[in-house]
Amino acid sequence: MDISKLKFDEKGLIPAIVQDEKDGTVLMLAYMNKESLQKTLETKEMWYWSRSRKELWHKGATSGHIQKVSEMYYDCDADAILAKVVQVGDIACHTGKRSCFFNRLV
Amino acid sequence: MDISKLKFDEKGLIPAIVQDEKDGTVLMLAYMNKESLQKTLETKEMWYWSRSRKELWHKGATSGHIQKVSEMYYDCDADAILAKVVQVGDIACHTGKRSCFFNRLV
Repeated sequence: MDISKLKFDEKGLIPAIVQDEKDGTVLMLAYMNKESLQKTLETKEMWYWSRSRKELWHKGATSGHIQKVSEMYYDCDADAILAKVVQVGDIACHTGKRSCFFNRLV
Repeated sequence: MDISKLKFDEKGLIPAIVQDEKDGTVLMLAYMNKESLQKTLETKEMWYWSRSRKELWHKGATSGHIQKVSEMYYDCDADAILAKVVQVGDIACHTGKRSCFFNRLV
């Protein structure tokens, strides 16, 4: 897979929207650098760059809540990724909730 | 609405995932600054900060493809927004496609 078209920002990151493939629930937004994207494409499991820990992050390596890639897309500007995943354990958020988007604004 | 909890990045921006409320399709990812978020909350239509044009952007003001807010959430880290919208015209992307995520990676 040629990922040279993708635009990483000045920190070398691209945002990835993660959506549950079974019902379309948006689970989280995280960031990938080139290495985590390559590992994701190779392993078909989601890898990110943890901005807080400043390290590669194989999602679920500790918790078991691995995300298996079903489909991945990039957007018209090539600066964002959408991944449809099978969320093992049905929990994506570190709080134990299914989705990180549980705080309502509107 | 108190938006003081939200974390804007060093450029004053927060990413907003936009999802069609009718079937959960992810339409686009765009960025809001504080002013565009306030306008979104006031008008219940999506406003962004255009990073390329460096100006406030009332989505659909030119094309007619306005996005009416149904629900909005922020995530566990308070550094990303999810908006569920009614997409007028059923087209979100400037290319004329419904969603910006039409380029397949996997």
